[in-house]
Amino acid sequence: MSVLAGLYRSSLALLTDLYQVTMAYAHWRSGTAGREAVFQLFFRRHPFGGGFTVACGLATAVEYLEGFRFTRDDLDYLASLSGNDGAPLFEEAFLRDLERIRLEVDLDAVPEGTVVFPHEPLLRVRGPVLQAQLLETPLLTLVNFQSLVATKAARVVLAAQGDPVIEFGLRRAQGIDGALSASRAAWIGGCSATSSLLAGRLWGMPVRGTHAHSWVMSFPGEREAFEAYARALPNNCIFLVDTYDSLEGVANAIEVGRELRARGHEMVGIRLDSGDLAYLSAEARRMLDEAGFPEAVIVASNDLDEHLIESLKLQGARIDVWGVGTRLVTGWEDPALGGVYKLTALRGPDGEWEYKLKLSEQAVKVTNPGIQQVRRFRLEGEAVGDLLFDEPLGAADPPTLIDPLDLTRRKRIPAEAAAEDLLQPVLRRGERVAALGGEREARERVRRELALFHPGVKRFVNPHTYPVGLDQRLFDLRTSLALAARGFAG
Amino acid sequence: MSVLAGLYRSSLALLTDLYQVTMAYAHWRSGTAGREAVFQLFFRRHPFGGGFTVACGLATAVEYLEGFRFTRDDLDYLASLSGNDGAPLFEEAFLRDLERIRLEVDLDAVPEGTVVFPHEPLLRVRGPVLQAQLLETPLLTLVNFQSLVATKAARVVLAAQGDPVIEFGLRRAQGIDGALSASRAAWIGGCSATSSLLAGRLWGMPVRGTHAHSWVMSFPGEREAFEAYARALPNNCIFLVDTYDSLEGVANAIEVGRELRARGHEMVGIRLDSGDLAYLSAEARRMLDEAGFPEAVIVASNDLDEHLIESLKLQGARIDVWGVGTRLVTGWEDPALGGVYKLTALRGPDGEWEYKLKLSEQAVKVTNPGIQQVRRFRLEGEAVGDLLFDEPLGAADPPTLIDPLDLTRRKRIPAEAAAEDLLQPVLRRGERVAALGGEREARERVRRELALFHPGVKRFVNPHTYPVGLDQRLFDLRTSLALAARGFAG
Repeated sequence: MSVLAGLYRSSLALLTDLYQVTMAYAHWRSGTAGREAVFQLFFRRHPFGGGFTVACGLATAVEYLEGFRFTRDDLDYLASLSGNDGAPLFEEAFLRDLERIRLEVDLDAVPEGTVVFPHEPLLRVRGPVLQAQLLETPLLTLVNFQSLVATKAARVVLAAQGDPVIEFGLRRAQGIDGALSASRAAWIGGCSATSSLLAGRLWGMPVRGTHAHSWVMSFPGEREAFEAYARALPNNCIFLVDTYDSLEGVANAIEVGRELRARGHEMVGIRLDSGDLAYLSAEARRMLDEAGFPEAVIVASNDLDEHLIESLKLQGARIDVWGVGTRLVTGWEDPALGGVYKLTALRGPDGEWEYKLKLSEQAVKVTNPGIQQVRRFRLEGEAVGDLLFDEPLGAADPPTLIDPLDLTRRKRIPAEAAAEDLLQPVLRRGERVAALGGEREARERVRRELALFHPGVKRFVNPHTYPVGLDQRLFDLRTSLALAARGFAG
Repeated sequence: MSVLAGLYRSSLALLTDLYQVTMAYAHWRSGTAGREAVFQLFFRRHPFGGGFTVACGLATAVEYLEGFRFTRDDLDYLASLSGNDGAPLFEEAFLRDLERIRLEVDLDAVPEGTVVFPHEPLLRVRGPVLQAQLLETPLLTLVNFQSLVATKAARVVLAAQGDPVIEFGLRRAQGIDGALSASRAAWIGGCSATSSLLAGRLWGMPVRGTHAHSWVMSFPGEREAFEAYARALPNNCIFLVDTYDSLEGVANAIEVGRELRARGHEMVGIRLDSGDLAYLSAEARRMLDEAGFPEAVIVASNDLDEHLIESLKLQGARIDVWGVGTRLVTGWEDPALGGVYKLTALRGPDGEWEYKLKLSEQAVKVTNPGIQQVRRFRLEGEAVGDLLFDEPLGAADPPTLIDPLDLTRRKRIPAEAAAEDLLQPVLRRGERVAALGGEREARERVRRELALFHPGVKRFVNPHTYPVGLDQRLFDLRTSLALAARGFAG
């Protein structure tokens, strides 16, 4: 479903930083607004100390681009802004031109659900510099967060080793669509369901939920509370057993489960939300099995994340379904993916491409210039390395990956390796040229993609660094541009 | 401005967890839907290891409540949900009743911008249990996050010691209104401006911004880039000087500042976005002063938070304006305020209040029962303690605060102390009974409130614990309910 248009009434053209519009205006005034530019969106470090990242948010970004319009209200607001002399920042003629903007950019992107690595472009925007620049902030907002949560979800789902994971994070999420877009990304990352009804309605995700402690507290005792719930919703009974004492709660759930069964219904299971989940789940499993409920599932929740799930699994916890909330939807230890959007090429006044790079004192922050593509190589079904190359310059064959931070660290890719280019055309002059696929397809891609990588890449602590390198020609170009910018031009 | 209605097209009645609706249905089926209940929203621990929290998000929450309606689409979606036997979860008659719901709850709340402490109710909702329960999730979503960010902003602003702080977080925020509501809360918490145009338009906040590295990279050299910008926007010149070399950048800014001055304009200043900000700001200040630009401001950014600002101040950095992004709008080390919404009283079938408490193995998680009010005491202009008491039971005079976790830890409040009750009526039977004030008023309240507290409470590390205690009658009630629930009834 078209989420932005369905959800938001307001124009979102102002969902950007003021400096994007002042730069647009300065280009307009300087006569450079129409120069063709290439910007690339990438990140420099995997979140969560991990070894991989899942790209997500593209469909939302494309919807944003397709709906991009400055409304009269937006322009009135821009007209009201003034500078340090009290005079307006922007001329009327510029605002009239903004009103006429229809995006003419080309967008190439890696499909949602693709596993990606530092410095690989997730999105590549090519078009008039005024337009491409304006899009920096919203594209980052939409892609950074969803990629963060899809990655966290993939980690949690890996830890659960095939058990279903339910996303419960709405109440602790960062605002309304901090929640809604987190639910979407969590689903794509591999979660099986959400507690959030609006997310279920917007994206067709399965929704799950039964009752809270307050339900139990509304009755004189836990047994009466479970009975009343079972009478009302005999086909949705997962009893929350820890309001007073978890194992007494399990005993009450079993009694009510028997009554339900006598009426032709089957209890789904129980939920543990506090205490020693390893011990309690094992005891609860034993009690349920002995009472004739071997199919009843044990759901656990309480500040879970991939590390706790891994630990509970190692301890032999008998948990069938994992409810994960706060630590999934906020990213917790890493609440932002540090994605950036950098100018990598600009056509000069003569119509030739000028390649661009940003220097930094920190080697990892020096950017890669060009109009890049990412080529992924596979040998016997396993991904063995990614090559960044400049499309106009092309890539050497057979390819060699050169580590931009250590030119002596190289990897040769055998000629028999299968190759796939990750960036695919999405928009041409603002028009959609390819279908994006929906959330289900992206979710399936995550599952398929993760299977391509060595288990070491997916380890939670000190993962293996997957090889990503530059093609020789891109490496040489980057080196000569950096030397020139530092005053050592040949 | 009415933000939710202005921003969202969709009904937000489904912005809740499925279990709220299954509980509502179970109450409806059990004949208990109309029982009067009291729920209180509170948190158990200050975020960021701090000693205070700023309440925020009330206006958004009230707007949510006032617009609360189930639409036909919402009900069609609920009708589509089924249980483990494939049958629908909800009867048609229930959904028709949901469609007719107009909220009849009473809401009492602490005004936005009030400084609050663990276990103090920020919101108290009283009304039919079906309605009050449905509101749990959205109230938590809206209040948890804005309170988190307002608190972080207040800390950053305290660290800046009177220097303006600009919120820059849009590109790293958690979704669209993860950004928009963060900008609002950051402003209330004390920030002076935002980079986000949409936040500026929605809330009338000042907006700030000039140019990015990509502007500089679009020209053959930094000097040309500054000149082009200054020609276009002579009244908005803060030159970003670190694209190639920061101090050469300052020299270029000075040259262009001189040209601007010759044309009757004044450069606003420069911005440093990387490197050793203490060293570079001192050098930049010296260069600007020597060149005749003592009024030019130095703006700094680059992963700043209260700790880095405090450290830079201690090192004598010459920074006038602080740009704070990711670490402000996400909460960074603590990306969720763990607010909860607990049932504290429910009228029994006989019409009498039954007080409710939730037990836990962890003493800090045992809830306080009742229909609570918070009374804050001041002596000579300084807040000296907060008393939680049950409104029907009343409070002792003179009051004594009893620590619920250590009954021997008590504080007597002198009779001459001034007292103020924090919770104020907002809605009665769903209708607004008091004006809420806008963002500017809330922002001013934060400033005034923080001045009431001893500096030790506002320390960033190991702050002083401000005294909050229960009145004797509430303490006794809590003790007897907990004993009874644990089987030690008198």
